[in-house]
Amino acid sequence: MTSPDPAFYHPAPRAQQFCSQCGHALSREIPPDDNRIRDLCHHCGAVHYQNPRNVVGVVPILGDRVLLCRRAIEPRYGKWTLPAGFMELGETTEQGAERENQEESGARIEIQSLLTVIDVPLVNQVHLYYLADVLGPDLAPGPETLEAAFFALDEIPWNELAFRTVSTTLEHYLQDRARGDFPTHHYAINLRFPD
Amino acid sequence: MTSPDPAFYHPAPRAQQFCSQCGHALSREIPPDDNRIRDLCHHCGAVHYQNPRNVVGVVPILGDRVLLCRRAIEPRYGKWTLPAGFMELGETTEQGAERENQEESGARIEIQSLLTVIDVPLVNQVHLYYLADVLGPDLAPGPETLEAAFFALDEIPWNELAFRTVSTTLEHYLQDRARGDFPTHHYAINLRFPD
Repeated sequence: MTSPDPAFYHPAPRAQQFCSQCGHALSREIPPDDNRIRDLCHHCGAVHYQNPRNVVGVVPILGDRVLLCRRAIEPRYGKWTLPAGFMELGETTEQGAERENQEESGARIEIQSLLTVIDVPLVNQVHLYYLADVLGPDLAPGPETLEAAFFALDEIPWNELAFRTVSTTLEHYLQDRARGDFPTHHYAINLRFPD
Repeated sequence: MTSPDPAFYHPAPRAQQFCSQCGHALSREIPPDDNRIRDLCHHCGAVHYQNPRNVVGVVPILGDRVLLCRRAIEPRYGKWTLPAGFMELGETTEQGAERENQEESGARIEIQSLLTVIDVPLVNQVHLYYLADVLGPDLAPGPETLEAAFFALDEIPWNELAFRTVSTTLEHYLQDRARGDFPTHHYAINLRFPD
């Protein structure tokens, strides 16, 4: 098979025109027994619901340092982030967070507790970050990461962080560490970074 | 337009055959720069990622009683549940939980804290339950609910509950109430109810 340029491929947008089941054109209307507009197929009856996605990640701690990754992809190319990405089918949030860390930093970690649950409704996402112990200094960043590095907790590059979910999660970690207690924090972020 | 029988319509299954963007047949293969099989379109380049869904709900408390709803839909028709359902686009988990309560019980509530975050990987879901104060005894159950009723905390119909996410959330509530502290609990459920 002839392979097109990788740049040819892209995530399918939310707006959809054709039924994934039978290929017929979709209608946008309220289905029977529902109360909001959906993409539905009058040919085969399939209703194409859409839902928010979860982003799962870790706060990887090695002693007095936190592991951050510099993004090799848009959005926020070149900015520092916690290892995180979209949750996949068939995994738990914790397994997804561990997988994303493996893909982006390559550090060996042990997941601890759930630190933050953050609603980001403007982009239809929920972000979940786990505390994790880093088991050794070896790193093996993947293709989505320009570099991975440990930062002393008083040298976090606050002005070069990629997302508000990352900066607020780190703030909660520092406050919890000072207090010696790590409960799960839940909040919503209603604006894109920076705001 | 001629309206088919409401039973004609059904949620589109996860398996998909045609591209939602251009209507061409999809291929199942690993896209460039990816590491797992996706549904992708060689015609327009759209990659059709799929992700777990969030179910959001409430534990509605009025004094020493909890509000439960008896399901008028499958699965678990006729069993008792906490008001909950799929999170929709454009809302936070908290707004979704409030909406589901409104649709299923009609009770006026005030959301308090996030009580449980439960991974259910076998059905590709994450369930999130909020504690909520019920502001008055009036109920107005919707079409997905056979009846809504308040149960004394020592008269919860444990053997008639619909899902393990519901029973374990109620167990956490009772333990937290006895202790006077309501942190967020996170855990995974790996088997379908009953197990």
